[in-house]
Amino acid sequence: MKIGILGLGTVGGGVVNVLSKNHQEISRRCGSDISIEIAAVKDLKQKRICSTDGFKLTENSNDVVNHPDVEVVLELIGGTSIAKDLTEKALKNKKHVITANKALIAKHGNELLKLAKDNSVSILFEASVAGGIPILKSLGQGLTANKIDLVAGIINGTGNFIMTEMKEKGRDFDDVLKEAQALGYAEADPTFDIEGIDAAHKLAILASIAFGVELNFEAVSTEGISQVDPEDISIADELGYIIKHLGVAKKIDGRIDTRVHPTLIPKKRLLANVNGVMNAVLIKGNAVGPTLYYGPGAGDEATASAVIADLVDLVKGTHSNDEFCWKQLEKANYIEKDNVESIFYLRILASDKPGVLADITSILAKHNISVESVVQKQIDADNNAHIAIITNKILTKEMNKAINEIQAHDYITGTVKIIPVETLD
Amino acid sequence: MKIGILGLGTVGGGVVNVLSKNHQEISRRCGSDISIEIAAVKDLKQKRICSTDGFKLTENSNDVVNHPDVEVVLELIGGTSIAKDLTEKALKNKKHVITANKALIAKHGNELLKLAKDNSVSILFEASVAGGIPILKSLGQGLTANKIDLVAGIINGTGNFIMTEMKEKGRDFDDVLKEAQALGYAEADPTFDIEGIDAAHKLAILASIAFGVELNFEAVSTEGISQVDPEDISIADELGYIIKHLGVAKKIDGRIDTRVHPTLIPKKRLLANVNGVMNAVLIKGNAVGPTLYYGPGAGDEATASAVIADLVDLVKGTHSNDEFCWKQLEKANYIEKDNVESIFYLRILASDKPGVLADITSILAKHNISVESVVQKQIDADNNAHIAIITNKILTKEMNKAINEIQAHDYITGTVKIIPVETLD
Repeated sequence: MKIGILGLGTVGGGVVNVLSKNHQEISRRCGSDISIEIAAVKDLKQKRICSTDGFKLTENSNDVVNHPDVEVVLELIGGTSIAKDLTEKALKNKKHVITANKALIAKHGNELLKLAKDNSVSILFEASVAGGIPILKSLGQGLTANKIDLVAGIINGTGNFIMTEMKEKGRDFDDVLKEAQALGYAEADPTFDIEGIDAAHKLAILASIAFGVELNFEAVSTEGISQVDPEDISIADELGYIIKHLGVAKKIDGRIDTRVHPTLIPKKRLLANVNGVMNAVLIKGNAVGPTLYYGPGAGDEATASAVIADLVDLVKGTHSNDEFCWKQLEKANYIEKDNVESIFYLRILASDKPGVLADITSILAKHNISVESVVQKQIDADNNAHIAIITNKILTKEMNKAINEIQAHDYITGTVKIIPVETLD
Repeated sequence: MKIGILGLGTVGGGVVNVLSKNHQEISRRCGSDISIEIAAVKDLKQKRICSTDGFKLTENSNDVVNHPDVEVVLELIGGTSIAKDLTEKALKNKKHVITANKALIAKHGNELLKLAKDNSVSILFEASVAGGIPILKSLGQGLTANKIDLVAGIINGTGNFIMTEMKEKGRDFDDVLKEAQALGYAEADPTFDIEGIDAAHKLAILASIAFGVELNFEAVSTEGISQVDPEDISIADELGYIIKHLGVAKKIDGRIDTRVHPTLIPKKRLLANVNGVMNAVLIKGNAVGPTLYYGPGAGDEATASAVIADLVDLVKGTHSNDEFCWKQLEKANYIEKDNVESIFYLRILASDKPGVLADITSILAKHNISVESVVQKQIDADNNAHIAIITNKILTKEMNKAINEIQAHDYITGTVKIIPVETLD
């Protein structure tokens, strides 16, 4: 099997290195040899993390996608413009494509899958979600006997590193973000990571496989971690919760709910104990019950591990992206945001006057919202009481009505903060 | 695809139920229909957990393995005598076999794989290890790019339930075992679960796939949980560890070490937080790093989920047990038990006399064993000091020499207890 690689950066370099160092093992499992024919790079003179002995290098990507001997193209450039163009060319040239590009699949997956099908080739993307964890194979093959009820995952390592540091060391968001950038975990422009866009890309892919529906990135409601306050982390801790940036996909009565946001999780759940840059995905099937998959969500060789697993599946013919067959994916029916049911954590700043807590809880009661737990923190320097409430499970629109009503009162001295809670039981 | 089932007990009944309730989902993923042709049961009149509408029932298992229309036989009887005989007949009749039978595969897997190969059919056994967790597919396909360094798993739900109850409620082993039997977690004869034999079967299978070697159940050194003392659990807790019954398979310098025993694990590891009847397996690959897979290790529908995943793989041709191809599996080179390196926890009962601790630590030092931490508990009613020590990493034979020397002293008032420690870092 001859392959061509687009991009020899972190992931591409990792693939070359792993193919080399585990050559014997991979050949044994594969039953045949995988050889790199050609790789396209931006600048031939750049220093790389891998050796480039034994294959051609080019600065012209078309040399790869048009190469007559190349059977599989690894798209490891990233982004959605050039990568999309080259992926389309490769598929049209009847070459299989393996990609680690979540943005590409989340946004253009439907058309690319159709194009692959029309050309009788495959496009595989295990590495696009949760790095080295074989999560797409587990969902698509390992749990194939199940109707999937829930997917809930920590699927952005940078975000989880920041949340972990804030929790464990009481540090501020901005402070930890700077460290994450210095460590190379976060990009110079960290928007995709901290605003939840990267996680939303991955969640769209997970939901598509889990529920057998078309990819729909736009349907994911997305909130990042930049607004998470150390005070919320500390109050959540007191109430028995940890705040994680979670991607959640649910199917309820045939309708789908996909969202990415900071979430309170009970401390005792395994997901709450996934720290640093690690990823983990909880999947609940109606036969198997709860299962969880944990591992590194990024890194050169971890991501390469997933890329090469797809490659070996292609060589052996054991890949299984029939889930994605264009004709089989349904258009999904999504729950409107307002009609999503959830438990909520509220944090309210109010003047320290008698009757305020009674007033707030009676407004909640009027909207049929009951209070599962409440803490009132000591009065701050501005004479504000800090009140935190965990509600029962209610419709988002009811919650919003109640909050608007609470917010309108004179005694409220700040914006009411609201964070969803997932019990994951 | 027409299937025949041997046994309609917990797992067989679960398979029938899941195939029925998730029929639409499975057909969509499968691309074709799976229909049950015939099932063999011990007693036609027995009450079952599943409906038997739509397929034939027989008390003669040969009706299943010889049935001309049956393409796949599900062996869900258990045990190694009748099950082995029927599996062989089915394979010789050129029918694929799917089994949940860990004892059968661990003890006779090599010959059965050869027989399957000779007859150009497959024998698949995802359900034999860790129930619903797709752990064999993850090892064989998802992590195929890796050299596997370590497999460490909680792979016996009954044992983990007992260890969890002992830890959380300070209960005695015998007391919890009785409850496990009343709850149906443990058999009337619990030997396989509590003496580690069931876990050893599963570990032998995991090691075979992880390292590409022949199945070798006899090479697994096996110790159960019946000797775990609540005092050890409580001292371990003080030292920052939790005791779990762990299956461990390592490959070090080309030599394999497989063992099942109670093990101290640092509290902060995810594996230490896997409780009750749940299973989890940690796998370290040289490319991906550490990954962990968690889920229910038993139960009718959880196990059925794994059986049906194999079935769908067969229908789609996406199964991948080439790892097991007779000609490709190597004979492994095992490390002698004495030459295994480990950290150890020791618990020593000694008369409360001056110089005892100094004497013990100097014996350890003489054998080049350093003490990483030590606690001495209050003196008991018999005037014994309870001393617990965590050592550095040393050869088992050195540890044993030191213990024999310590044990020989007059001031030692009980048998020195020794439990391996795995840091899993």
